Amino acid sequence: MKKVIGIDLGGTYLRHGLVDESGNILHQAKEVVRKERSETAIIKQIFNGIQPYLKEKPVALGLGVPGIVSTEKGIVYSSPHYPDWNNFSITHLLQNELPIPVVIDNDANLVALGESWLGAGRDWDSFILLTLGTGIGGAIIIDRKIFHGTNGFAGEIGHMVLSAEGPLCPCGSRGCLEVFASASGLKRILAAMIEDGELPQNQALEDLQGAPNHEQVRELSELARKGSGTAAEIWRQFGYYLGIGLASIINATGIQKIILGGGLMGAQDLFLDAAKKELGQRTYQQTALGVEIRKAQLGDPAGILGASRLAFR
Amino acid sequence: MKKVIGIDLGGTYLRHGLVDESGNILHQAKEVVRKERSETAIIKQIFNGIQPYLKEKPVALGLGVPGIVSTEKGIVYSSPHYPDWNNFSITHLLQNELPIPVVIDNDANLVALGESWLGAGRDWDSFILLTLGTGIGGAIIIDRKIFHGTNGFAGEIGHMVLSAEGPLCPCGSRGCLEVFASASGLKRILAAMIEDGELPQNQALEDLQGAPNHEQVRELSELARKGSGTAAEIWRQFGYYLGIGLASIINATGIQKIILGGGLMGAQDLFLDAAKKELGQRTYQQTALGVEIRKAQLGDPAGILGASRLAFR
Repeated sequence: MKKVIGIDLGGTYLRHGLVDESGNILHQAKEVVRKERSETAIIKQIFNGIQPYLKEKPVALGLGVPGIVSTEKGIVYSSPHYPDWNNFSITHLLQNELPIPVVIDNDANLVALGESWLGAGRDWDSFILLTLGTGIGGAIIIDRKIFHGTNGFAGEIGHMVLSAEGPLCPCGSRGCLEVFASASGLKRILAAMIEDGELPQNQALEDLQGAPNHEQVRELSELARKGSGTAAEIWRQFGYYLGIGLASIINATGIQKIILGGGLMGAQDLFLDAAKKELGQRTYQQTALGVEIRKAQLGDPAGILGASRLAFR
Repeated sequence: MKKVIGIDLGGTYLRHGLVDESGNILHQAKEVVRKERSETAIIKQIFNGIQPYLKEKPVALGLGVPGIVSTEKGIVYSSPHYPDWNNFSITHLLQNELPIPVVIDNDANLVALGESWLGAGRDWDSFILLTLGTGIGGAIIIDRKIFHGTNGFAGEIGHMVLSAEGPLCPCGSRGCLEVFASASGLKRILAAMIEDGELPQNQALEDLQGAPNHEQVRELSELARKGSGTAAEIWRQFGYYLGIGLASIINATGIQKIILGGGLMGAQDLFLDAAKKELGQRTYQQTALGVEIRKAQLGDPAGILGASRLAFR
């Protein structure tokens, strides 16, 4: 059976694996991205990481990269996690070192392709995927293929505007879905509630403001599950905005099948009902009736699997 | 050369024509929709209207209908202009009276298909069309075909939410693009400015509040062109929201080619710069660089031509 190398480059970890045509991961590894994050340093780390797979004669290599990527040109235009990269011809440079074809795509697109191949989207021709993490990743699958739009930058669903005059987003816009329905969004909702004096004396919540994202998320989940009405309200607001964002993308594209992934889905019991309620109020009845929301199934290896699928094609 | 019948049913007018494979309109007519707007009355009016074309042996009939339409099932689920219609099997009923295949789609979708065939989108594989009128019509063309989403209700771009807590929209949601960037949106912006006391004593503008939509639009354009800073500001706000809506749909789908049509494009000199400015601020640079906006070219017959194109397929 043919094999390929699938790579998922994130902001913190580099994951890679050798995958066969049925989607079995024969070997895999996860390493921390080194401190030196230049273009050449990354190429080197990838090349070293995949050395062991080469003797098994893979036929291609697929790679997912966070950021604005052109699959056609093999270029990473920019990446939030790698600010020094600038029109980085990553495909070309890898290709120079390797005897097999190399193909890249945006990381969220490849997670979606993985879910389409072997996960929650197996029986759907078309769907929208959102990953809810520090930010929001997005992808659109149409007829089992990644939809790229005109120049390849589709799926920035986290940057649909939900609140024209809302909080500034790192992308330069204001009130994007991502500033509400992400880990950094939770932090923002919490801060806004404290500032508006909507939080009754609640030291546990006030202390949370300085904590790192993942700790806040865990703590806010625990507090809500232990009965804190305020923590529950923060999650409800998170769900409210997520529901509005889903309504917008469903109304615009007519794609009613949704897969939600990312670390925050561990708290879906705290926000998904609010999201569905808001979504129902903001779509026509005929549209709302056909909406289906599923949780992503593949977890950590989704990116490797999607990259492998891309490489097989 | 083969011929088909193309029909464009609007809220006020019924337009129909006989069209050949090159897109020549051999005959056409426009009639006011009769007062009796039941399902059977419309079928009768359509049937009477197209009688003269039947002797020329058309091979199919295409029909555009405003509202939520399933092309696959030939059903109009609901229509803003025909509130009595309820799961109206319009294709089936027309088919009973006619010896040729009948196919329907949403009116904005067919305007887009017309522009793709013979108009502003001739050289674009994929684009988004918005018609700016009393409301906003929307359509997505991908690879020269109408994109229908999961159940056929794609292109409700006017119902992307731009302002989560904004004004109530007739669709049941709040702060949709349509409540700002349409003729009724202009009225709303005007009313809000008067209410906020942002309008200095300006009888001409205050008097406009009660006027019908099309008169308001004309008057606001004239006032702005004659130098009224307030009227110009209303159009600027219109453009601001249009730009945000375009940023949202472009970010989400990656489709960077846009066609704008509808009656309000007569005032494009008053709002398009503001829209482009806002769009530029709310998209990544790589995305913004590829954006192209064109004015629809086909005007009134666009619906007939799109319906004909559909019929030929």
